[in-house]
Amino acid sequence: MSALLSALRAALGDDAVATGEAIPAHRLTDWSGVPPVRPLALLRPRSTEQVSAALQLCMQHRVPVVPQGGMTGLAGAAQPLAHGVALSLDRMQAIEQVDAATRTLTVQAGATVQSIQEAAAAQGLLFGVDFGARGSAQVGGALATNAGGNGVLRFGMMREQTLGLEVVLADGSVLPMLRPMQKNNTGYDLKQFFIGAEGTLGVVTRALLRLHPAPSARTTMLAAVADYEAALALLARLQRRAGAGLAAFELMWRDFVQASLAWQQLREPFDAPHPLLALVDLDGPDAAQLQTALEDVLAPALQERLVLDAAIAQSEAQARAFWKIREATAELPTNMHPPVNFDVSLPMAEIGRFAIACRAALDARWPGHASVFFGHIGDSNLHVSTDASTIGGEVEALEQLVYGLVGDFAGSVSAEHGIGLHKKPYLERSRTAAELAAMRAVKAALDPLNLMNPGKIFD
Amino acid sequence: MSALLSALRAALGDDAVATGEAIPAHRLTDWSGVPPVRPLALLRPRSTEQVSAALQLCMQHRVPVVPQGGMTGLAGAAQPLAHGVALSLDRMQAIEQVDAATRTLTVQAGATVQSIQEAAAAQGLLFGVDFGARGSAQVGGALATNAGGNGVLRFGMMREQTLGLEVVLADGSVLPMLRPMQKNNTGYDLKQFFIGAEGTLGVVTRALLRLHPAPSARTTMLAAVADYEAALALLARLQRRAGAGLAAFELMWRDFVQASLAWQQLREPFDAPHPLLALVDLDGPDAAQLQTALEDVLAPALQERLVLDAAIAQSEAQARAFWKIREATAELPTNMHPPVNFDVSLPMAEIGRFAIACRAALDARWPGHASVFFGHIGDSNLHVSTDASTIGGEVEALEQLVYGLVGDFAGSVSAEHGIGLHKKPYLERSRTAAELAAMRAVKAALDPLNLMNPGKIFD
Repeated sequence: MSALLSALRAALGDDAVATGEAIPAHRLTDWSGVPPVRPLALLRPRSTEQVSAALQLCMQHRVPVVPQGGMTGLAGAAQPLAHGVALSLDRMQAIEQVDAATRTLTVQAGATVQSIQEAAAAQGLLFGVDFGARGSAQVGGALATNAGGNGVLRFGMMREQTLGLEVVLADGSVLPMLRPMQKNNTGYDLKQFFIGAEGTLGVVTRALLRLHPAPSARTTMLAAVADYEAALALLARLQRRAGAGLAAFELMWRDFVQASLAWQQLREPFDAPHPLLALVDLDGPDAAQLQTALEDVLAPALQERLVLDAAIAQSEAQARAFWKIREATAELPTNMHPPVNFDVSLPMAEIGRFAIACRAALDARWPGHASVFFGHIGDSNLHVSTDASTIGGEVEALEQLVYGLVGDFAGSVSAEHGIGLHKKPYLERSRTAAELAAMRAVKAALDPLNLMNPGKIFD
Repeated sequence: MSALLSALRAALGDDAVATGEAIPAHRLTDWSGVPPVRPLALLRPRSTEQVSAALQLCMQHRVPVVPQGGMTGLAGAAQPLAHGVALSLDRMQAIEQVDAATRTLTVQAGATVQSIQEAAAAQGLLFGVDFGARGSAQVGGALATNAGGNGVLRFGMMREQTLGLEVVLADGSVLPMLRPMQKNNTGYDLKQFFIGAEGTLGVVTRALLRLHPAPSARTTMLAAVADYEAALALLARLQRRAGAGLAAFELMWRDFVQASLAWQQLREPFDAPHPLLALVDLDGPDAAQLQTALEDVLAPALQERLVLDAAIAQSEAQARAFWKIREATAELPTNMHPPVNFDVSLPMAEIGRFAIACRAALDARWPGHASVFFGHIGDSNLHVSTDASTIGGEVEALEQLVYGLVGDFAGSVSAEHGIGLHKKPYLERSRTAAELAAMRAVKAALDPLNLMNPGKIFD
């Protein structure tokens, strides 16, 4: 082992190889709460060439490598291995180019999501992915988990932002897939393999990302509906009227709204406690046109009682107040003891039935449970959080119940957080044996010695 | 061999296994003009189960399989092998579901692109991919080549329309990746591997595709500019003003416009023969708003002489007249003897310089050559067609010259037609040795006996 560390120090420089107590605590675990693990060493390369050199040396010594981004993952994919090295890209943060003419950005994988949002904004452009951990999460990690977040309805996930990647494979070979073309059908689209692979196939070192024009106006609406089917119908009408301008459609069940109002000491937004609230953002070139579009949809919907009540924000402060109800997710850790969080996706037409079935099953098993239902419905993504203290700490039984139901509804046990360590036991609920065999075959093809983040996603 | 044919007849039925002269001529070659080849047999399965059974039998007998769609490919990817079977999906044409609420469509891979466009339109929806061969091209073939066409700027290529695929691997195992969720991060996104793989990794049997709301209004504009940089600036301004409403931005160099007008006996659209014409489609909910958006962009652009002249179509007939200039591509086979067609993509900022360099190189080598330059510029896709009779039939020298330049400009030798047989010699201009090695490793992992469309894309 000391031979490897010496070789790594020679290749990367002494200050790029930390061991023991010199490894900072935040490199030992991520936001998922998996137990901290101290790796053999933490590597902090400065360039793609150094990443390549490090992987070659680790392969020569048969030592596994865990790539790390900002450590904000919620599935444990970046947890180090005690017998492996951790590879942080935090020194590779350069935003190498922002090209306003072609609306692209070239960046090293260690840059934070927020830094590329800001670089885009400085050119009057928008990076399409945004989520709470933006200030710490790195581009490489966001790519490794195909991160989603607040803008998926309009712009898609990280995959849809990605025009090119530079990737280093386990053997140190570099795939320079950074050609800035929208269209490029020359054999397999290899870069797709690495997006969402959670660092198990290679290390993303650079990315060429798509940017979008920044919208000049945004209008926000809160609408109450009686059931999920009404929410889906409202979504369809909004999409028909506003097309790609529909930037968010978040749905909150009454349990969520009630908890949010109580935790944050907010007032009921409407006179009655309606079963479901939809939070809608519409983007476009002109605020008056957006207001008209919302009114065009709302007038008949209110008359038909498809929408029970609604309010269009008349100021940014009012829009923020509507969003504050949704942003109670930041309050979950304080108010649940602790929260057990689910991030599942389901066929969009089934989410209402799933929520009813899931709540009924929870009521039957743990009559006093506290659970909240909410989600990015336009993306087929439902979140459920349950207070572990209200189910007698039976977290595993809860997970089996919820993921079992997800399987029954042909859903996915991970919408946007990945599998990592945390959801490995439930992967076969969303994937068949043939699919898992194909994944393992690809893994063995690109990483024959199983050195890239082994044990994550599957064993 | 007769043992295999007997087993196939037993599994699929006698009428699903044709041999010799019973194989129709259009199954022997595609639209690329590769020489016709008669396969051992043509298989016409009726179901995924039959495809699976056929592949298992072929694997037992070590006989390669060439999947075939509508035979409209332009790269030879569906050319049969004399020692293999051809597998046509033309009996698997069912459109199984159109779900207006979630805007998705489930279809067997043998359905034509036109049939799914029509099924979507019947529900007031739009399928995002459209191209000239729509009436014959099949969904499976369009997926195998990641087809592009007229709608890429707004909706992307086939990949962006694809929520799920059902794929049969070489060993007959079925990957049922048809979960209708926008978000699904459960291990590798395997379906991505098969899109654009030209049938070399497996057979796509069903697809779950995204639909879009049909736009209620469209406005078309023709604008003249002095050089490529002005066209790019106009494109950026349109995108800033119209966002996702910009549905087409086609650029035609003077050589193309001149040929088109002559071939079709059309009149000059403007008083002067401008160096470049941009053809623009804007989609949105309201025609008057689209007109205003175009005027907002045009007024300052004309004043600054960024745009030299422009016309906004005031009727559908006028819009069709503008598009007729662009649609001269259908006239290429009649007017060039024969045309040598290039479908390349380049960094968007470089297309103007590439066009100048390419024309200069052609002028130097073949002073009397007739070549036309045009393309989907918003997609980074340039087409060049040269009349072979004006370069003394030196097609190979022409291809080497053009693809060599494409490599110099870090471009792609195939934007939307694929590699097939035709572009195999030039693949390494767009892909490094490490990338090709990774492709071969994936191919060997999923098709270890090399039975799926062997010899296409690479040897």
